[in-house]
Amino acid sequence: MNAEEKSGKKIVVLFSGGLDSSTMLAQAVQEREEGEEIIVISFLYGQKHKKELESAKAISKHYEVEHKLVQLPQLEGSSLTSEEEIESKTEKEALPSTFVPGRNILFLALGAAQGFMRSTREEKLEIWIGATAADQEGYPDCRIAFMEKMEEALKDGLDRPLLKVKSPLVKLTKKEIVLEAVKLGVPLELTWTCYEGGEKPCGECDSCFFREEGFREAGVKDPLKE
Amino acid sequence: MNAEEKSGKKIVVLFSGGLDSSTMLAQAVQEREEGEEIIVISFLYGQKHKKELESAKAISKHYEVEHKLVQLPQLEGSSLTSEEEIESKTEKEALPSTFVPGRNILFLALGAAQGFMRSTREEKLEIWIGATAADQEGYPDCRIAFMEKMEEALKDGLDRPLLKVKSPLVKLTKKEIVLEAVKLGVPLELTWTCYEGGEKPCGECDSCFFREEGFREAGVKDPLKE
Repeated sequence: MNAEEKSGKKIVVLFSGGLDSSTMLAQAVQEREEGEEIIVISFLYGQKHKKELESAKAISKHYEVEHKLVQLPQLEGSSLTSEEEIESKTEKEALPSTFVPGRNILFLALGAAQGFMRSTREEKLEIWIGATAADQEGYPDCRIAFMEKMEEALKDGLDRPLLKVKSPLVKLTKKEIVLEAVKLGVPLELTWTCYEGGEKPCGECDSCFFREEGFREAGVKDPLKE
Repeated sequence: MNAEEKSGKKIVVLFSGGLDSSTMLAQAVQEREEGEEIIVISFLYGQKHKKELESAKAISKHYEVEHKLVQLPQLEGSSLTSEEEIESKTEKEALPSTFVPGRNILFLALGAAQGFMRSTREEKLEIWIGATAADQEGYPDCRIAFMEKMEEALKDGLDRPLLKVKSPLVKLTKKEIVLEAVKLGVPLELTWTCYEGGEKPCGECDSCFFREEGFREAGVKDPLKE
């Protein structure tokens, strides 16, 4: 096909450098067709685990995609961004302390704005976000219903009728994500998952717990564990 | 009524310090009932007309409401935030150069996140935004349909079923806004409208043009004009 027929699709991948979004980025790279462009965006929002951004940078380099880092104001109201202790295991009923109010809404808005500037109204524009099956209960801004409504709001607010919000991992368990990552050859040793952001994964936080469980159930050795 | 019966409503007013949002703030102050709280938020996003934030601060002080200033990253893709010349009068067909992609989506998300932290799930939470009748054609993120969809997305993404997005000026012309401002006693001499952010209003930009037209049609003298 000639240049005029190329889709020119832009795919904006919201990227933390963790297991989930690294797997999603690998999917985007695999699915990309000629003439399509991937733009990876990571965010600084006062998270304690800023270390994940080194992973985001290294993994973007691995996949040879453009990586954009956006500095947000300190997002408040979460144990991920304050001195509050990060609780392990989430209580039923209440939202988990690790919920960051408005975070995914902001990420989607900024991702869409970035994609808007890189595309025309006639080009396909997709914003990919790494919400998973495990996020559905505790995190309202990871739920399918929210994603659908946010897509509608973004389409209208940017006047981009072809815009889509995609969450390709939304029905996958952690085990399935580990298996997908292995299948796609994700450089797992470069990913970072732990909320604490220490030298090594703490092994105690929710995020470490679910990562460990996923690797164990998948029968795969986590390269971050000795 | 006793303390338990108070509504505890929180009203987050997105506030630029211009004529429109100052009039909206005056409306919020007038409508506020006992036990209800108004939180005013302004944003730094790389706009050339940062001068408006001095107005926002002064007007918040005038109305004795809490004023929060949020520093965003430089929002790109607009003549309001770049060296690109701010065109006067907008062309049909294309979006105006003064459209800032994603701006109102971000403002609403950050306003809602702020309101989330100040309220419980059982309290009413309103986010007020100063979109006007004149904004409907050129600015997709000022349109009623967008506001309705964004409200749905915010309700879901924050798990706040009582959240509302309100745009009380959305059917008012500039003339009607000037008349409303005068009726409510808005300190018009403290407002700032011009996109250029010089010592005095430039009198040339779209924003100055519509302000002047509004005052002229309302038969009111603009205190910013000698």
